[in-house]
Amino acid sequence: MVLAPLQVTTDALNYTWILVVSFLIFFMHAGFAMLEAGQVRSKNVANQLTKNLLTWSVGVTVFFGIGSGIASLAGGGGFSAAFMTSGTGWIDWLYGAVFAMTAATIVSGAVAGRAKLRAYMTYTFLLAAVIYPVVIAMTWSSTGPGLVEVITGTAFTDFAGGMIVHGMGGIAGLTAAAILGPRMGRFNEDGSANVIPGHSMTFAVLGTLILAFGWYGFNVGTSAIIGDAFLGEQLGRVAMTTTISMAMGAIGAAAVAWLKTGKVDTLYVANGLLAGLVGITAIPHTTAWWGAFVVGVLSGAQLPIVFNFVERTLNIDDVCAVFPVHGSAGVLGTLLYPFVAAGSVAIVPAFIAQLVGVVIIGGWTITATAAIWFVLKSVGQARVTPEHEQEGLDVSEHGVETYPEFGSDGVVADGGNVSEMIRSDGGSKDE
Amino acid sequence: MVLAPLQVTTDALNYTWILVVSFLIFFMHAGFAMLEAGQVRSKNVANQLTKNLLTWSVGVTVFFGIGSGIASLAGGGGFSAAFMTSGTGWIDWLYGAVFAMTAATIVSGAVAGRAKLRAYMTYTFLLAAVIYPVVIAMTWSSTGPGLVEVITGTAFTDFAGGMIVHGMGGIAGLTAAAILGPRMGRFNEDGSANVIPGHSMTFAVLGTLILAFGWYGFNVGTSAIIGDAFLGEQLGRVAMTTTISMAMGAIGAAAVAWLKTGKVDTLYVANGLLAGLVGITAIPHTTAWWGAFVVGVLSGAQLPIVFNFVERTLNIDDVCAVFPVHGSAGVLGTLLYPFVAAGSVAIVPAFIAQLVGVVIIGGWTITATAAIWFVLKSVGQARVTPEHEQEGLDVSEHGVETYPEFGSDGVVADGGNVSEMIRSDGGSKDE
Amino acid sequence: MVLAPLQVTTDALNYTWILVVSFLIFFMHAGFAMLEAGQVRSKNVANQLTKNLLTWSVGVTVFFGIGSGIASLAGGGGFSAAFMTSGTGWIDWLYGAVFAMTAATIVSGAVAGRAKLRAYMTYTFLLAAVIYPVVIAMTWSSTGPGLVEVITGTAFTDFAGGMIVHGMGGIAGLTAAAILGPRMGRFNEDGSANVIPGHSMTFAVLGTLILAFGWYGFNVGTSAIIGDAFLGEQLGRVAMTTTISMAMGAIGAAAVAWLKTGKVDTLYVANGLLAGLVGITAIPHTTAWWGAFVVGVLSGAQLPIVFNFVERTLNIDDVCAVFPVHGSAGVLGTLLYPFVAAGSVAIVPAFIAQLVGVVIIGGWTITATAAIWFVLKSVGQARVTPEHEQEGLDVSEHGVETYPEFGSDGVVADGGNVSEMIRSDGGSKDE
Repeated sequence: MVLAPLQVTTDALNYTWILVVSFLIFFMHAGFAMLEAGQVRSKNVANQLTKNLLTWSVGVTVFFGIGSGIASLAGGGGFSAAFMTSGTGWIDWLYGAVFAMTAATIVSGAVAGRAKLRAYMTYTFLLAAVIYPVVIAMTWSSTGPGLVEVITGTAFTDFAGGMIVHGMGGIAGLTAAAILGPRMGRFNEDGSANVIPGHSMTFAVLGTLILAFGWYGFNVGTSAIIGDAFLGEQLGRVAMTTTISMAMGAIGAAAVAWLKTGKVDTLYVANGLLAGLVGITAIPHTTAWWGAFVVGVLSGAQLPIVFNFVERTLNIDDVCAVFPVHGSAGVLGTLLYPFVAAGSVAIVPAFIAQLVGVVIIGGWTITATAAIWFVLKSVGQARVTPEHEQEGLDVSEHGVETYPEFGSDGVVADGGNVSEMIRSDGGSKDE
Repeated sequence: MVLAPLQVTTDALNYTWILVVSFLIFFMHAGFAMLEAGQVRSKNVANQLTKNLLTWSVGVTVFFGIGSGIASLAGGGGFSAAFMTSGTGWIDWLYGAVFAMTAATIVSGAVAGRAKLRAYMTYTFLLAAVIYPVVIAMTWSSTGPGLVEVITGTAFTDFAGGMIVHGMGGIAGLTAAAILGPRMGRFNEDGSANVIPGHSMTFAVLGTLILAFGWYGFNVGTSAIIGDAFLGEQLGRVAMTTTISMAMGAIGAAAVAWLKTGKVDTLYVANGLLAGLVGITAIPHTTAWWGAFVVGVLSGAQLPIVFNFVERTLNIDDVCAVFPVHGSAGVLGTLLYPFVAAGSVAIVPAFIAQLVGVVIIGGWTITATAAIWFVLKSVGQARVTPEHEQEGLDVSEHGVETYPEFGSDGVVADGGNVSEMIRSDGGSKDE
Repeated sequence: MVLAPLQVTTDALNYTWILVVSFLIFFMHAGFAMLEAGQVRSKNVANQLTKNLLTWSVGVTVFFGIGSGIASLAGGGGFSAAFMTSGTGWIDWLYGAVFAMTAATIVSGAVAGRAKLRAYMTYTFLLAAVIYPVVIAMTWSSTGPGLVEVITGTAFTDFAGGMIVHGMGGIAGLTAAAILGPRMGRFNEDGSANVIPGHSMTFAVLGTLILAFGWYGFNVGTSAIIGDAFLGEQLGRVAMTTTISMAMGAIGAAAVAWLKTGKVDTLYVANGLLAGLVGITAIPHTTAWWGAFVVGVLSGAQLPIVFNFVERTLNIDDVCAVFPVHGSAGVLGTLLYPFVAAGSVAIVPAFIAQLVGVVIIGGWTITATAAIWFVLKSVGQARVTPEHEQEGLDVSEHGVETYPEFGSDGVVADGGNVSEMIRSDGGSKDE
């Protein structure tokens, strides 16, 4: 086929835009790695980092071979010969893969500090191969009406994955954390909670800001084919609502924290900013400017409340607060769709469609996640031993220390005597 | 209106370019957060991070509702009904907002370690609502001749905000720091200075490199509408002068440090690199290749000298050196315009116009900033108590510790005994 | 010349794409800085960071004035009057410069912890001025057939610098590390090795993920002129093979580590991911989808083996494993070209051409690097004194401490007594 010259330029623009936003979304893995690393104990940091690296590495490979095929069941794909020889099709694949891996990586924050590496990797494999692709097959990749529209007669609205990616990841995390049980010492016998603070607020906030940077790709980039029809109106609305909701999320969480304790907890501000981003992700293209304020402030304000409920009432140890940040905020934003829309939306049918979508995606995610973690638990492979948990997963699972010079391991930071610093031959780095 | 097909593609290119550079400029907040966090004591890190998150969150909201309207006084905008229903207009708004928030966030580095959170947020609110927008109304957003041109007959040249954004932010920071007074123990009774080193050079350098990355968006991205007329010459010049001035800034600061002490202070190299970026920001589009060397090396070399003057002579505690990096380097680059231009520029009228612009922007910034901080100080709301300053702002203002496992708070890094690590129920994380 | 309207838009697209990927590649310096900082002792972190900042600053300046001229010897350039007044030419220059600086910065990881700053900077100067430019003149910038084609009759294939940038950098690093000798205490008299662990796994992994982000610009961005002819097929293939090879690199290294020790060493996973990226960099545009799996897993799997060989057999102290990551992985991927190609390639002549290219580039790099470091060593300027090495290069070369509040320098993290924290007047920060 000979392309007309203008079409060449237009196609090139479309594909370079998709690539750039895919790179930004990929970079969110650095954000998740830092956000989670900062929120865990120093003895578990390398474990968290390794999970992050392997989530991407194993997940994207599985999504190439299996997941992307299931995701586009309705329209062929993945397994097909056409896919394996495609070129531009691989741009679309990468674009799909970075969204898939975002859903996958959220779970690791919930099960931090006690899940076995092999358990987590087994779950990640199945999430990338089946759980997430089934959600996509039911929603984004349907060539006909999606499952929600078949059931309710109204289409399900989720622009960039507020429910499909973040809600799904947050719910999966909560489910896994519930089955896995809390870290040792997290809850007392009377059900009261102890705080196990993360080891570095600096890394947590760095992760937050890297995520926000990547999120612009996530949300604005979902206006993918920008050169064929002029999508400037949509691009501008998405950029504005994403910005305002992120800002109001931080403000909402800060306000609730301040009202309750008189102080502005840094981690609530950071997680509130992320919750504001999650909240708007389903609906950035349709929300009115004032709606972005509403979605943001509610997404942020619910964070401390839901965190409290999960901790105090459910006694679930969701280490990095992934449910309040990704789960409940994603559900909230998805359900708010008809109430904050810029244009005229028939509220009742739209709300029902959104609710049905949330229930289907949530139900499938809980069911599949629970099944896998119950099996892992029943064969004694879900959780490290109490000794290993006490010692820290870095040493027990990876044979490394994250900060060998700091802390109280008999290793001094003094440069005066090198022999005190070095491990003898035979350490893991020596194989 | 039906757009011609080529215009669709061209508009799409223009807007995606503006969006991508806006994302890069937003990411500079991660850079500022790390740069400043690295330069403060570990007991004040979370405070610095929180200020950074809230500067963006509160600032961008205020700039949406108030600031952008004032900024474009001359040509309508902000408050108007048109703005509230726009689409592509919101792309331009985000583009303006990320510049505004850069100016705002600079101040937090100067007042670190002793400003009350509510004082800082009050100032940030007013900076985003009024102080910066007035500067914009006098310069970039004028539809007719700007204020400087009205006065001198010659236009004020500031391509990407060397004076308007960075100079303004650096001067505001110095003014606020002067009124607030130094941290306890920073200066002795005889006027001599003590160094209070930052807690992590690694975070400071990470922040520096993130800022440099975002700065390419800041400077090169200011060639905004690239598809309608071929701006390749300008794009290339801006990319080259920005790169060379950044490099020479690091070299200039390193050289002065080395000449004075025989050693190359890492922080001077990092801040010199940033000063080189600031120095060229007003004039990257007009400066000759050799001019970029001149601007860079002078911007870097002035850093240790001006830092010294601020510390030793003025006894102002500008914690993160924001005046030498953003203030004096911004002024210097702005004034160098006619002397380093690639083309022929009438030196005297151009220099007068630049000088008048610097005086107007600097004068307005000092006046407005001083008024606000004097009021805050007079009502006892500017500064935390000596007890809180001693204890650190993380605990007193935020109820958190940035590194709970490190240091000497009776919390050991040993994983052996979880109960030693956890805060009892009722800590801030529990609300 | 009056450009036709479509050509204006197409040129603008091409140049903005080149600029965006150049920014991404520049950002790899933040990745290298963090990766290397994390892998060195805390007493040498600021030294490593300074080297990184100065590599860019000095290197890019030298490459502007000297290196780019030599690099394009065959076709004019660099020194020429045309270059000094160009605009779009400077976009191409920046694009070349960010590749050059990647090669330069790799070396600092190999010689960490004992090379004198002035020795390292001398080498960097010569690398940017001559060593790398000569490689470019022999390969990418030849207007006629490159040197390999002249010799073998078959062109040398290196798409994005698997050999030209990474292989060259890794080989240079190994050569310099061999001549410089190991850090004190690194090897015992019987030739057995001691591990000197890096000070922060978190920074190392952050650096890894920043590098992977930038690498998308490095590889995908090498499809540079995307608007004139439709390069979608190539863009998609490069994006896919880069992703898969990166993922399989992490998996391959993790698998070998796990087979040998039963544990998954975090640093091997991170470095394996990078080795997967290096491995594909020469050939992302021609490799079949299954070939990306092969290249990735082999690049990752060779990492622990080659690291072991360098450490145990050669007793070379390659601190940040730059040879296994950049050197051997780059050579491997370059040589694999004909065996994993998607299309039909005549294996024997193609392999010979690749081998000859590897030998020429490797031979030149070793010769030039060895000559410089032998001279530096012979005049006693290569290495710091044993006292300075013991004390740490941060203090001896830079007069700073990276983490003044942590460790055992008599400086306590307690906020209670500021006077204990502050250095007296006259410290390096005071000049």
